[in-house]
Amino acid sequence: MRFLLTALAFLFSVSTHAQQKDEEVIKKIYNEALTNGKTYDWLHYMSKRIGARLSGSPEAAAAVEFTRQVMDTLGLDRVYLQEVMVPHWIRGNKEFATILNSKRIGSRQVNVCALGNSVGTGPAGVSGGIIEVKSFEELAKLGKKAVSGKIVFFNRPLDNTHFDTFEAYSGAVNQRGSGASEAAKYGAVGVVVRSMTTALDDAPHTGSLRYAADLPQLPAVAISTKDAELLSSLLKNEADLQFHFQTNCKMLPDVLSYNVVGEIKGSQFPEEVINVGGHLDSWDLGEGAHDDGAGCVQSIEVLRIMKTLGIKPKRTIRAVMFMNEENGLRGGTKYAQLAAKEGNKHIAAIESDRGGFTPREFSVDTTPEKLAKMAAWKPLFKPYGISDILAGGSGADIGPLKPLGTALMEYVPDPQRYFDVHHTAEDTFEKVNKRELELGAGAMTALVYLLSEYGL
Amino acid sequence: MRFLLTALAFLFSVSTHAQQKDEEVIKKIYNEALTNGKTYDWLHYMSKRIGARLSGSPEAAAAVEFTRQVMDTLGLDRVYLQEVMVPHWIRGNKEFATILNSKRIGSRQVNVCALGNSVGTGPAGVSGGIIEVKSFEELAKLGKKAVSGKIVFFNRPLDNTHFDTFEAYSGAVNQRGSGASEAAKYGAVGVVVRSMTTALDDAPHTGSLRYAADLPQLPAVAISTKDAELLSSLLKNEADLQFHFQTNCKMLPDVLSYNVVGEIKGSQFPEEVINVGGHLDSWDLGEGAHDDGAGCVQSIEVLRIMKTLGIKPKRTIRAVMFMNEENGLRGGTKYAQLAAKEGNKHIAAIESDRGGFTPREFSVDTTPEKLAKMAAWKPLFKPYGISDILAGGSGADIGPLKPLGTALMEYVPDPQRYFDVHHTAEDTFEKVNKRELELGAGAMTALVYLLSEYGL
Repeated sequence: MRFLLTALAFLFSVSTHAQQKDEEVIKKIYNEALTNGKTYDWLHYMSKRIGARLSGSPEAAAAVEFTRQVMDTLGLDRVYLQEVMVPHWIRGNKEFATILNSKRIGSRQVNVCALGNSVGTGPAGVSGGIIEVKSFEELAKLGKKAVSGKIVFFNRPLDNTHFDTFEAYSGAVNQRGSGASEAAKYGAVGVVVRSMTTALDDAPHTGSLRYAADLPQLPAVAISTKDAELLSSLLKNEADLQFHFQTNCKMLPDVLSYNVVGEIKGSQFPEEVINVGGHLDSWDLGEGAHDDGAGCVQSIEVLRIMKTLGIKPKRTIRAVMFMNEENGLRGGTKYAQLAAKEGNKHIAAIESDRGGFTPREFSVDTTPEKLAKMAAWKPLFKPYGISDILAGGSGADIGPLKPLGTALMEYVPDPQRYFDVHHTAEDTFEKVNKRELELGAGAMTALVYLLSEYGL
Repeated sequence: MRFLLTALAFLFSVSTHAQQKDEEVIKKIYNEALTNGKTYDWLHYMSKRIGARLSGSPEAAAAVEFTRQVMDTLGLDRVYLQEVMVPHWIRGNKEFATILNSKRIGSRQVNVCALGNSVGTGPAGVSGGIIEVKSFEELAKLGKKAVSGKIVFFNRPLDNTHFDTFEAYSGAVNQRGSGASEAAKYGAVGVVVRSMTTALDDAPHTGSLRYAADLPQLPAVAISTKDAELLSSLLKNEADLQFHFQTNCKMLPDVLSYNVVGEIKGSQFPEEVINVGGHLDSWDLGEGAHDDGAGCVQSIEVLRIMKTLGIKPKRTIRAVMFMNEENGLRGGTKYAQLAAKEGNKHIAAIESDRGGFTPREFSVDTTPEKLAKMAAWKPLFKPYGISDILAGGSGADIGPLKPLGTALMEYVPDPQRYFDVHHTAEDTFEKVNKRELELGAGAMTALVYLLSEYGL
């Protein structure tokens, strides 16, 4: 009995000692992020000097080179590129759309932008009657007779009663992703989709669509929420409204691009790999500051902080800048293919792709046992605004790692402002707050540190 | 035993039934705030139509009338004004300050603004050598010999390693509040204070000072943090640097102003009063959008939501727009004086005065027993981003209610962005996010509802 008590006391002492040490290391990590952080300067370069970085664009190539060069200055064990062929969609000249014949307001230009991957209309544009639906079910009920030859207007708004705006987004985004092919089933000639935002504003929000293989490819645009409201209100009394839009986008042949990877080799378990990443590509309308310049610079900052503080991780840490999240996921897919071949064990991957906003949570997609282990770390994060570590989804780029048994994680910042700027001209450096960005980097570094120390 | 079990089962059933009802009511409250909320429109009026509302200004009078009129439309039981005499400080023409004789950069104009309540320099301005200190202790050590005839430059920055920027602010703000009188002890002729912000920027941040009764009143300005860094770097090698500033501010005689109060009478315990409030006055440089237009419109929204949803509170609810928080606290003081006389029991007061940012917590200043009762409500708030109800400070305006035994509470939103805009020209409507503002109103309404249902 005495032995047992002594052993328990010893274990307790080891455990509290470890916790105290972790608290101290994490405090140092945050202090470094908040007083000497580099994320804000790096993001300034990515946003203001390089700018929008659509896959296949010269700016995407510049971002590959910029992040490679930044990581080359950090004294890492290895910085390298992974070749990946990416789609090369271009918007061309600015889109144009107009309500043609309203009895109430005459003709009126409205704010639209082509959806990513969409075919263009060509110079003649698309004109026709316009029919509003809120769901694919409603569209199917209307059927060919009502829809054929018309432009379909998908106008189901995001449900703003969700605290988590990503839930609201999930509830509406199938209109953007599949609306064009759904409408094609019934003979429509074009598609107008209400912008995927919680705000009521004038900015059209782009984003990708996917054409079904066996259906005509209809040109599709997003319309600003204010203009969607206008159009809907007119349609209530003017069923014969005519609409016109013209887009100049097209898909070009695939282009060679790269994922960019920086690595610190693990001191004890180098064959166990922990990834932390974001995506380098962005939509073409803004500067890709929140989406996802923020996630990229935060991921690089994880490595910089570890090197600066002299933390020698037990397990291998990799910062990965994925290419082509927005309209193809080629980079994430390629990374996972290579990971499956390399023989290392990919124990965990963290993505930051919800903007550089103030911290809230980590969401984790793994077994209950591993989640329970991580949940025990919650008290270490509470002083820094991370109030939970809980089961949930993860980033798109790391999804392809799931078959390897990798625990997938996502840094979850506050979601209230994200869809104000998401996929628009408003996603600029000015919309990012320095402290919020830095706190995200601190949170990610602290989590990587704990995963590296204790494994999963 | 069977009786006991039955009784327990009954109590459990009552308790879970009550909790379920509370969950439903709170869900309705948030849905109303997020889909039909009026805070954003009201704040637009206060910020863009009225603008800055310094105590004693015509705009402050307009804000009294605006909030009175808004509350008059809500079908409340009573809307009324409380007379209060307020200080009337005016800034006058824009300030001017310059480094005069740097060997490195010659003369250079820097960004300053007079501190609130400060005397002006008059047209001649103040010129002299400038001496940098980080604390009052350092100033005292230097003593009269070094300080006499000089301008004192208080340059202790906010400590950015705090997650809670208000802690960083607390650690630095005595320089602004008392620096002028501390410097006067040693014969200084003027005071320059580093702006109270976590950011490195060009905006001077105003805010009030208090002169000690028995010391000369020195003119005092805030300098932008970027210019503070410049000045400090020059002083390292140029101890004989000369500085000049001119301010045109002055204190005029007190002016009659008002607190604005709207009330819903309690249905069961009308003599128990729950306050929810913010302050109507603001600094003069921006639009007072976050500080504290947000708190005002959120407080009015509490009453609007209750009326709209048909919630009949058991206790009396008052929304109070306090006047003169920024440079005198006369409104809060007056409200408490009247409350002490009126014979009602002021059980709780909630203030929102930390900006219209995304929710984090409620902080409560009361007995451990009452706090424990409130802490049991935490699960009701978790789905809406309020992760804690914990012991802490409260708003300045409701502080004077403490001797009445009132439980004091503060709505605590995320603090990362507040000091970017605090007391500057940047505190504008554009810096407020609609959803964040609305979530604050929802949180405050839900808390008022629970306090009204269950008392304390």
